[in-house]
Amino acid sequence: MNSLIERYNGNSLFETLGIRFTYLSEGSSSAQLQPPPAVCWPFDGQPHGGVLFTLMDTTMAIGVISAAGDDYSSATISLDIQYTARARHAPFKCSAEVTHSTKNLCFSRASIEDNDGRVVALGQGTFKLINLNR
Amino acid sequence: MNSLIERYNGNSLFETLGIRFTYLSEGSSSAQLQPPPAVCWPFDGQPHGGVLFTLMDTTMAIGVISAAGDDYSSATISLDIQYTARARHAPFKCSAEVTHSTKNLCFSRASIEDNDGRVVALGQGTFKLINLNR
Amino acid sequence: MNSLIERYNGNSLFETLGIRFTYLSEGSSSAQLQPPPAVCWPFDGQPHGGVLFTLMDTTMAIGVISAAGDDYSSATISLDIQYTARARHAPFKCSAEVTHSTKNLCFSRASIEDNDGRVVALGQGTFKLINLNR
Amino acid sequence: MNSLIERYNGNSLFETLGIRFTYLSEGSSSAQLQPPPAVCWPFDGQPHGGVLFTLMDTTMAIGVISAAGDDYSSATISLDIQYTARARHAPFKCSAEVTHSTKNLCFSRASIEDNDGRVVALGQGTFKLINLNR
Repeated sequence: MNSLIERYNGNSLFETLGIRFTYLSEGSSSAQLQPPPAVCWPFDGQPHGGVLFTLMDTTMAIGVISAAGDDYSSATISLDIQYTARARHAPFKCSAEVTHSTKNLCFSRASIEDNDGRVVALGQGTFKLINLNR
Repeated sequence: MNSLIERYNGNSLFETLGIRFTYLSEGSSSAQLQPPPAVCWPFDGQPHGGVLFTLMDTTMAIGVISAAGDDYSSATISLDIQYTARARHAPFKCSAEVTHSTKNLCFSRASIEDNDGRVVALGQGTFKLINLNR
Repeated sequence: MNSLIERYNGNSLFETLGIRFTYLSEGSSSAQLQPPPAVCWPFDGQPHGGVLFTLMDTTMAIGVISAAGDDYSSATISLDIQYTARARHAPFKCSAEVTHSTKNLCFSRASIEDNDGRVVALGQGTFKLINLNR
Repeated sequence: MNSLIERYNGNSLFETLGIRFTYLSEGSSSAQLQPPPAVCWPFDGQPHGGVLFTLMDTTMAIGVISAAGDDYSSATISLDIQYTARARHAPFKCSAEVTHSTKNLCFSRASIEDNDGRVVALGQGTFKLINLNR
């Protein structure tokens, strides 16, 4: 699992947005967001909702892959996100968990909290499992 | 309307992701995405789904604001996005339209097409209207 | 196509809720809702949101099946519905269209209007295609 | 709280679909579904997805009202539902919890399990709070 985290952290997208995976264990995953000023718009110090979405989507995805196993990749089919409060206090923590898996699909739920433990976003997503050996 | 486009284009988030508003008229809005290599991950040349989401959310939002009038800002309450095909061929174009408005809420629909006219994402969002004069 | 409509209309669920398919053509479908008093709750004359959802889901599904062909059935994976206005004036008309299909998935969009042409609900759904011959 | 449950149980919609609220406590709520044969379509013994949606929406709504207080009613703005498994084994139990509230909005999450404890549906919804005294 740690190797999966290491493989993803440090990529150009995560560097740009300030995302870093912190935890992964068989369907449960966490990541942290420390947004650079460039992606805090239109309010200084507050990451755009699209940055929070990217944090949520990628945290879900690594959890999905960890649950499916080494032979699988995943692709997001759909994701519904709710913004419950303004995202004022960095860093942010996203926690995701796989809620159900079938042969080809995986469902996940996630929440994002600010540094005070306030929930700023909630979401549920549906992922396609892609067998890399076929 | 053009002044609204000009006010938003060129901000740091849009520069980072490669987004530019191109059209706005009373609830209808369009934007273009020409993603820099840094946000094309994990596949070269293909913007991450979170970048497409940000394109969709911001295109919807400017349309919402244009429909509500100069005294209003908006905040995304929820947005459901579907990814219908891989996002291979830049630039991408997002078109959004306000579907319904009430006193405090605004609903929007959007689609994103690649350069070949193939739909890569569809979404619907709910926005809160914020009266700037109160 | 007409035979597909005839096969579904008149089933016990539709009789209970007041649903009737009216149109079907290769991915485009329409249905009407004339809700009996029993399912108009908590407001007299106004169908519950769950009845509107059922109207939307089934209208989408028959469109999905018509687009996929005789060898397929479908199952709803996820559906996001927005309620834009109160559903006061029966009968209601739902129109759905398939927006994209892959080998195993089908995406659909729909809207429901009241008898005055006012949009009361909007939705997008993701469906699994089930090959009946396997 | 018990009086709120009693006020709603036994209405014509719930009688038609087989829904009954069973628990309510400040934002947490539960309901049971024992679907009559008429709403089990197209598969005998399996409630239609729209019936499960109605169960989820109403369970969320009573929780929202209980959290907001006696002076409030609620209306569903949007609800995203995922169907994770076929709904084979009645009765079904829906559990919902309010995840966040603002002055005018309330967010809720819910899951539905079959009689074997298998999750058949998951959802998240956004509700408008309506002050009955204004």
